[in-house]
Amino acid sequence: MKIEQITLDHGSGGEASRELVETVFVSRLKNNFLDRMDDSAIINLFGHNLAMTTDSYVVDPIFFPGGNIGSLSIHGTVNDLAMQGASPLFLTLGLILEEGFPLKDLEIIIDSLARAAEEAGVKIVAGDTKVVPRGNVDKIFINTAGIGIIPKDIDVSSSNARHGDLVLINGDIGDHGMAILTRREGLSFNTQLESDSASLNSLVDVILESGKNTHVLRDPTRGGVATALNEIAAQSGVGIQIFEADLPISKPAEVASEILGLDPLYLANEGKCLIIAPPEDAHLILSSIKEHRHGKNARIIGKVTSDNPGRVLLKTKIGGNRIIATLTGEQLPRIC
Amino acid sequence: MKIEQITLDHGSGGEASRELVETVFVSRLKNNFLDRMDDSAIINLFGHNLAMTTDSYVVDPIFFPGGNIGSLSIHGTVNDLAMQGASPLFLTLGLILEEGFPLKDLEIIIDSLARAAEEAGVKIVAGDTKVVPRGNVDKIFINTAGIGIIPKDIDVSSSNARHGDLVLINGDIGDHGMAILTRREGLSFNTQLESDSASLNSLVDVILESGKNTHVLRDPTRGGVATALNEIAAQSGVGIQIFEADLPISKPAEVASEILGLDPLYLANEGKCLIIAPPEDAHLILSSIKEHRHGKNARIIGKVTSDNPGRVLLKTKIGGNRIIATLTGEQLPRIC
Repeated sequence: MKIEQITLDHGSGGEASRELVETVFVSRLKNNFLDRMDDSAIINLFGHNLAMTTDSYVVDPIFFPGGNIGSLSIHGTVNDLAMQGASPLFLTLGLILEEGFPLKDLEIIIDSLARAAEEAGVKIVAGDTKVVPRGNVDKIFINTAGIGIIPKDIDVSSSNARHGDLVLINGDIGDHGMAILTRREGLSFNTQLESDSASLNSLVDVILESGKNTHVLRDPTRGGVATALNEIAAQSGVGIQIFEADLPISKPAEVASEILGLDPLYLANEGKCLIIAPPEDAHLILSSIKEHRHGKNARIIGKVTSDNPGRVLLKTKIGGNRIIATLTGEQLPRIC
Repeated sequence: MKIEQITLDHGSGGEASRELVETVFVSRLKNNFLDRMDDSAIINLFGHNLAMTTDSYVVDPIFFPGGNIGSLSIHGTVNDLAMQGASPLFLTLGLILEEGFPLKDLEIIIDSLARAAEEAGVKIVAGDTKVVPRGNVDKIFINTAGIGIIPKDIDVSSSNARHGDLVLINGDIGDHGMAILTRREGLSFNTQLESDSASLNSLVDVILESGKNTHVLRDPTRGGVATALNEIAAQSGVGIQIFEADLPISKPAEVASEILGLDPLYLANEGKCLIIAPPEDAHLILSSIKEHRHGKNARIIGKVTSDNPGRVLLKTKIGGNRIIATLTGEQLPRIC
């Protein structure tokens, strides 16, 4: 049945999002860039490869433990570029403000954004501000687009995973999604829970330095680790096996997930990176990134298989195998 | 008095917008790019100059005579690049959709957007779609960001106007603003009124080819011709004199302006370009662009003076002089 209306599912980053992109956008804007379906496009200019990306941020609440919509709008776009192996350079900033939005809040947001940009070493080179009447937008939405330079010989597309590779992650999963959710719903059972929102470009530098044969980098944002791994499995035509016992989850997030009945594998992350590399590189990467402030709790969480191409399997703690599907509905709207 | 809340004026493109940008953004994001205050930044990459820009489109209604939010979101960003003398190349597309938005409308919008991109010769290389719950956004907002290459020796910043230069425009003023307003308010007294929304990059090619010494290109969008000329006067430190009798205004827009009490000089345009060049070049440009489909009603409308630096004066039809100030309030919210 053909859908007639946009639903929240279409913004989930999961199956419905992919379907919308394929049926409405790719067919009309047909070009080699969009066909690749990675988070950033790779364009060639003057004989160099550039990554180019865009993201709109509609997170609710706009202030949350560990950050706000301003810092998030830098971290997210810097990470989309970094996941192509690019050094992020220049960003644009588009703001849509609701009439009556407190100037004080705007100043706090732009302060965070400026600090995040400085930390990541990117420059905001152009901006645009629109104000719409009360009720036409909820407080503030931000778009950032950016470009970065991809060094020669770097190719870390999600279609590069190979049988025998190991799967790493740089730390605890689900913290961003859980921090947003608990703050939004006013749940106070867990005050230690903070978003992991961070720019990962300096971590990626360490990864690519120590793991010369790194095959895939991917940030598990909307749809979480489960959805990102499914996309890699599909795009690379491989199976992926992950081990429940090896998944790093913070105690607060684990407790909150159990109480709320949510699976951390589907919760959004904003400072995490999945890394897929041959075993020797994977171990070198693991020991290097453990020294980095965004890699202290890094782990090897799985491996790439030739069995079950296009599928992600979880080996549970009690030894069973469970298929981890792509997120199909919308777990949490306005998560980023 | 320090303002405490964002008002519609801050999105007008006029005085309040400039104040917000200067006090909140430029001070925090301090860098050479934003300081320039043009619509696009100029960045140097691999020894070449690139223009980079962003714009969010929040126009209401989303369908209007002469276009829709999809085509507009290409035209506006292509023009911001073209006004730097750049050849627009790559655009990103960020959509924010309201839950329940009709898929049919989205398809019409993306069709228009794709057609506009093809006509302008630009590629949409990356995209992002967010869906927010009903009531969190009004139907659909679009952000496009883009980059283009500036040929060597081209420098058409708004700070380049010189005493003795002539001021041209490529056709009738105020059509976009008036088309949006009459459609939004359900005014049907004038059905011939259409937005001028169009990509001007091919027109700019003709201008730069025939006017080798072109000093300034600027698109008079939000805030209209009046505001754009004031910005040029301020940035170049010159006076600008325009002649009421020479301003091209279509009959429908003139009638509508009179009935509604609006000044076409402050109405937004989305297919117009102010051109400032020395007299010899200006006349060459005028005769060339009259052959272009977006220049048929081009005119010389004024001149740059050393008197009254930073000011724009209108010589009225009856011979008086009137100061044309920057737009200070918001004439029409959600005009683009």
